[in-house]
Amino acid sequence: MTHGPRLTRLAQSLPATVPFVGPEAQERTRGAAFAARIGANENVFGPSPKAIKAMQRTASEIWMYGDPESHDLRAALARHHGVTPENIMVGEGIDGLLGYLARLTIESGDRVITSDGAYPTFNYHVAGFGGELVKLPYRDDREDLPALLEKAAETQAKLVYFANPDNPMGTWTEGAEIEAALDSTPEGTLLILDEAYVEFAPAGIAPRIDIDDPRVVRMRTFSKAYGMAGARVGYAMGAAPLINSFNKIRNHFGMNRTAQAGALAALDDPQYLAQTIADVAHARDEITRIATANGLTALPSATNFVAVDCGADGAFAKSVLDQLVARGIFVRMPFAAPGNRCIRISCGRPADLALLEETLPKALAAARG
Amino acid sequence: MTHGPRLTRLAQSLPATVPFVGPEAQERTRGAAFAARIGANENVFGPSPKAIKAMQRTASEIWMYGDPESHDLRAALARHHGVTPENIMVGEGIDGLLGYLARLTIESGDRVITSDGAYPTFNYHVAGFGGELVKLPYRDDREDLPALLEKAAETQAKLVYFANPDNPMGTWTEGAEIEAALDSTPEGTLLILDEAYVEFAPAGIAPRIDIDDPRVVRMRTFSKAYGMAGARVGYAMGAAPLINSFNKIRNHFGMNRTAQAGALAALDDPQYLAQTIADVAHARDEITRIATANGLTALPSATNFVAVDCGADGAFAKSVLDQLVARGIFVRMPFAAPGNRCIRISCGRPADLALLEETLPKALAAARG
Repeated sequence: MTHGPRLTRLAQSLPATVPFVGPEAQERTRGAAFAARIGANENVFGPSPKAIKAMQRTASEIWMYGDPESHDLRAALARHHGVTPENIMVGEGIDGLLGYLARLTIESGDRVITSDGAYPTFNYHVAGFGGELVKLPYRDDREDLPALLEKAAETQAKLVYFANPDNPMGTWTEGAEIEAALDSTPEGTLLILDEAYVEFAPAGIAPRIDIDDPRVVRMRTFSKAYGMAGARVGYAMGAAPLINSFNKIRNHFGMNRTAQAGALAALDDPQYLAQTIADVAHARDEITRIATANGLTALPSATNFVAVDCGADGAFAKSVLDQLVARGIFVRMPFAAPGNRCIRISCGRPADLALLEETLPKALAAARG
Repeated sequence: MTHGPRLTRLAQSLPATVPFVGPEAQERTRGAAFAARIGANENVFGPSPKAIKAMQRTASEIWMYGDPESHDLRAALARHHGVTPENIMVGEGIDGLLGYLARLTIESGDRVITSDGAYPTFNYHVAGFGGELVKLPYRDDREDLPALLEKAAETQAKLVYFANPDNPMGTWTEGAEIEAALDSTPEGTLLILDEAYVEFAPAGIAPRIDIDDPRVVRMRTFSKAYGMAGARVGYAMGAAPLINSFNKIRNHFGMNRTAQAGALAALDDPQYLAQTIADVAHARDEITRIATANGLTALPSATNFVAVDCGADGAFAKSVLDQLVARGIFVRMPFAAPGNRCIRISCGRPADLALLEETLPKALAAARG
């Protein structure tokens, strides 16, 4: 018998890992479904009824491949953002697009700048192409853009990752600050501005950046405010040459056809989006109220989740998280100190948060005892 | 202003291309929808009603990410094939899985063996990781496995691509022949057995191969016999270590949640599958009848399409194809000689084939005139 396939040296060196264990796997381990699923920053308020109808209506058309150009969706997004379709690449979630972007730019030893505790899936993709990650600390629970760009200049980094609003802390940087920092982007560095949560943020947080500025690519998604995480529809916005470069390597027929139809319908329902944003804001206030009532500190958030400071170290926060999970409430927590003094609670429906309110005191008591 | 992002040397060298232009793009160019969509080997008979219902029912659950492990689907597929879930990796269509496999194994200059005119998306992925493709001719319109394996030994190739039944010719190799050829697989070469169309084939065409044999990985899909091309659900079957290596690099959250549910339901409806296979067989006979009535030669097919030899060279076949397309019938054709003496017609519904029967004589006359 043979020794089997020969993986590349890089592939041999990589662990078989997953950036996030899914809640389904946790449910299988514990042998019971979660009573509240408020851990993955999914939007429990769900998609627009128009989007649901579009997906249901097109289910019987699933025998056809989706349009590999996502033409109609890109055209609608272009109108929505006042740019051209050539400035937009639709892909299999921001995760998929980050993977493509890493593949386009990163080879062994190339440096990439991010924050310690920021989005692990980005790190997974960079490491997966042999990139060398340089992680800077958060500053006051915020990603520190000037420091990230300074480090990029120092290390001649190819990519800088910056999420605004931030995940997992929920914090933000004003758009004007980003605009001011942009001019210190080093020659040949691409700033990835991950705006997955930006629709939840108040006005002024999205910077005004010329769409043809080759220094920046913006990542957006239908997974969060549009409530369609399971559909896998994200998009990159930026200068046309960069956007077109995705066509060199992407899985052209990677998009689900009903997801394309659903996203198109979701984009066409701004009233529902506004209602979701209001519902999320209310839930954010509720989580803050519940945290405060339990002697904890909720961080301000411009997203659909709240990082709740449990008042001690990462071990204690992990214990609180474990006690919530054991009681049927799915939550997650930041991976790196000092963010890992917090647990991260996604905005739930009233029933989810009622359960949180009932359970959190017990979880805290158990964690302390 | 800066010069923008620095792509890798490899990415700089790649064209921004698409292996297949979608029918939607052709419809936009011609300004009208196709009357018969029988060009992309989609299964016009569509998915099981159970699958449609499952997708419709789960549309409102799309706010949740899909299970990154596709646990339930892998478990059902494992039962279906008499293997373990550790032998199965679910991914974004065979296209997505071929991309992952190329990434795992291919780096600059690595050799890969395929047939000249075989699946272009595989070639796209290999080239996209810097692999060097060695293409062998078809033999009697069939992919020539012994020759492919011999060339692999000669070139120390990492991968051999072999589709059975074949696309685009529709021909096949008996399973017993494959089993016999397998022992000449060189040390360290992985045989990719693309069985996208195998459910349409008569018994005996799928070889019996030990699932733990590290020399082979089999690719299957819900895009063809299960009628769910737009869902993007494929799977790789093979030895557990190879299957687990996908976890090093794949987009773990890349699967659409309703697609997972739809595939699970489709797998649970063997009666519908059997009906589809009968409908496809009938359509195959009809295409053969229509071709013969027009003085053309239909190649025998074990798939849901028929390669029709137009009796002259590639330029003539292209002209026939263009005339069909101009008359609203979407068909495609093989890219390489001598296969490109044919046009490739996917099995359609009776209405599609009635239109073909009406249109083909006109298209032929126009092509000859």
